[in-house]
Amino acid sequence: MTTLHHPEHNATLALTMALIEKPSVTPDDAGCQQLMAERLAKIGFAIEMMPFHDTLNMWARHGQGKPLFCFAGHTDVVPSGPAEQWHTPPFTPTIIGDMLYGRGAADMKGSLAAMIVATERFIALHPEPAFNLAFLITSDEEGPFINGTPKVIETLEARQEKIRWCLVGEPSSGKQLGDVIKNGRRGSLTGHLKVKGIQGHVAYPHLADNPVHKAAPALAELATTVWDNGNAFFPATSFQIANIKAGTGASNVIPGELNVMFNFRYSTELTAQQLEQRTCAILDKHHLDYAIEWTYNGLPFLTAAGDLVEATVNAITHVQGITPQLETTGGTSDGRFIAPTGAQVIELGPCNATIHKINECVAIAELTQLTDVYSALLLNLQHKLSA
Amino acid sequence: MTTLHHPEHNATLALTMALIEKPSVTPDDAGCQQLMAERLAKIGFAIEMMPFHDTLNMWARHGQGKPLFCFAGHTDVVPSGPAEQWHTPPFTPTIIGDMLYGRGAADMKGSLAAMIVATERFIALHPEPAFNLAFLITSDEEGPFINGTPKVIETLEARQEKIRWCLVGEPSSGKQLGDVIKNGRRGSLTGHLKVKGIQGHVAYPHLADNPVHKAAPALAELATTVWDNGNAFFPATSFQIANIKAGTGASNVIPGELNVMFNFRYSTELTAQQLEQRTCAILDKHHLDYAIEWTYNGLPFLTAAGDLVEATVNAITHVQGITPQLETTGGTSDGRFIAPTGAQVIELGPCNATIHKINECVAIAELTQLTDVYSALLLNLQHKLSA
Repeated sequence: MTTLHHPEHNATLALTMALIEKPSVTPDDAGCQQLMAERLAKIGFAIEMMPFHDTLNMWARHGQGKPLFCFAGHTDVVPSGPAEQWHTPPFTPTIIGDMLYGRGAADMKGSLAAMIVATERFIALHPEPAFNLAFLITSDEEGPFINGTPKVIETLEARQEKIRWCLVGEPSSGKQLGDVIKNGRRGSLTGHLKVKGIQGHVAYPHLADNPVHKAAPALAELATTVWDNGNAFFPATSFQIANIKAGTGASNVIPGELNVMFNFRYSTELTAQQLEQRTCAILDKHHLDYAIEWTYNGLPFLTAAGDLVEATVNAITHVQGITPQLETTGGTSDGRFIAPTGAQVIELGPCNATIHKINECVAIAELTQLTDVYSALLLNLQHKLSA
Repeated sequence: MTTLHHPEHNATLALTMALIEKPSVTPDDAGCQQLMAERLAKIGFAIEMMPFHDTLNMWARHGQGKPLFCFAGHTDVVPSGPAEQWHTPPFTPTIIGDMLYGRGAADMKGSLAAMIVATERFIALHPEPAFNLAFLITSDEEGPFINGTPKVIETLEARQEKIRWCLVGEPSSGKQLGDVIKNGRRGSLTGHLKVKGIQGHVAYPHLADNPVHKAAPALAELATTVWDNGNAFFPATSFQIANIKAGTGASNVIPGELNVMFNFRYSTELTAQQLEQRTCAILDKHHLDYAIEWTYNGLPFLTAAGDLVEATVNAITHVQGITPQLETTGGTSDGRFIAPTGAQVIELGPCNATIHKINECVAIAELTQLTDVYSALLLNLQHKLSA
């Protein structure tokens, strides 16, 4: 065991453990942001707490009037599940060998600690950096994501406070720290379709109108439609029927209504509005009597290139000796709420194999590496702007 | 009130009331068949009880070696439902005005009584008729129809005992006794289809295989296929999807399996086997991975013309002064089990407006008319065969 495995010699490990000890299950912050605020205030950050309903948010800013780099993340964690199934108590950070165990170790208290420690180091080297720094921290990323990042962004937009570069600490890595950076995410749009017919007895079909029969060719067309061909960063937009249901259970009753729930995962080649219009055009073409409701799960975003991608890729290559993959796959994150303001947004954090699982853990070496990568990223931006 | 409204002056009314008093809810015969057997034995019928499991059946035959006319029916009734919702106790036959109330009054204890009384009259006039007579009576027509008519027919077939003409006493009439004769019924075939796919996350559609997408064009084709054009007696065969279901409820999961239940009501232009083959050909054409199970609810049958239809139509015209409609519409009856033996089968009974309902009733005049029609039918057959 190296000295880096002792919290007294590893500031990131010590802070990660302090954060894991606070059982901050969504939307309860449990004092995490206060701990972070104290550290950031000491190095000159102005702290602004932004509570909305049950959610605590923190906006911490260092400096005024220069382009703004922001670390974004969440202090909340998903529930531990049955604590007795864990090898170690989920909210008691425990080192076993090279690993740190505890809920939130990988998603994303390790990232939060690395951000803080990297920032402390950077400010120590550059007390008056060439750019401003900020932290946008919420406590409801794992929950309904209503009173967290979206509300903070709304507040910042209202006062025209703009983020130029944003790094979200989501656990993006696969097998090795830094092997994957997420530089965008697909959009997600859900449609709730109700096709109306007329219920009746199968012995008297002329008195009924079967909504399943009427909808089948429309569903077939929706399933085979090419919505776009994707682009260099996104696969083609995908349509999937997730649920379909009609009928009373009896074999002699023609159903009066068909319910279909479908989901689009869509690229930046299309907007949600275009998908809605094209869906309805197909339903109309098949003369369906229908009602449809839409749920907007998230807009797509892409940070194809630019200072942030360049500085991050270089930092990873410098610290880890590898070239990261840029990917837009996988689920959604709070990056979707920040990118629409015009910010460059990427996601970079530890390996995600154990997140949301029993015995969540992070390699202690990853915490050190992540701190070094974040530090190198800040230095790269500093050099770029000073050049 | 005429004397015909007094049981002592109206044998059919008296016997109907005696049968209603016996609470013969499926499959309990409750002594009805014993009562009928005593009456038939007195006029020379050989009585053969054929119990199968929980069901009592009676096969009663008058004469040997001549063409056989058979009255068919059931002593069982559907449950009364909440007795307190009835105006009169459901198993206490009660005359109010011109009507007789009680469970089974119309379906079909009135018919059974009319058959017995008509037969007694006929045998009194023709002690040695030109044809043989029989009664095929079961106690599970309203239930699973497994141990009733099908088992009796199986027994008769095994000993090559053939019915030439069969009148089923189902309540066929609409507004007036005898306005409708059922001279056939459509077949009913149910398919239980399971289309297999591969479950997955909507964000990773390339790892899944959506069974709803694959099945939609096949269902569209099944729904628009012209199976036949019917014939003079049957409407075109009809395909209806009664139930469809896939999905976990979540919007981000691609379902692994689709279940569809559909039903054919089919004419005599097609067999169940042909429908199955054509259905599977369509599913195969669309390259579905599927399993299918079939439920045979009943074969179609048709008695287009012949001695029985002629004798019955003439009897109705003679007694009621109207010309009956020949119809094949509506649900199924035990006629479907008798017709496949080669018998001519028709259904004729009282008006069906109150069957299976609270306050089931029959007009007392209908009981008299039905007895007269059944008597005239037997006399018509006698004249035909003696001519």
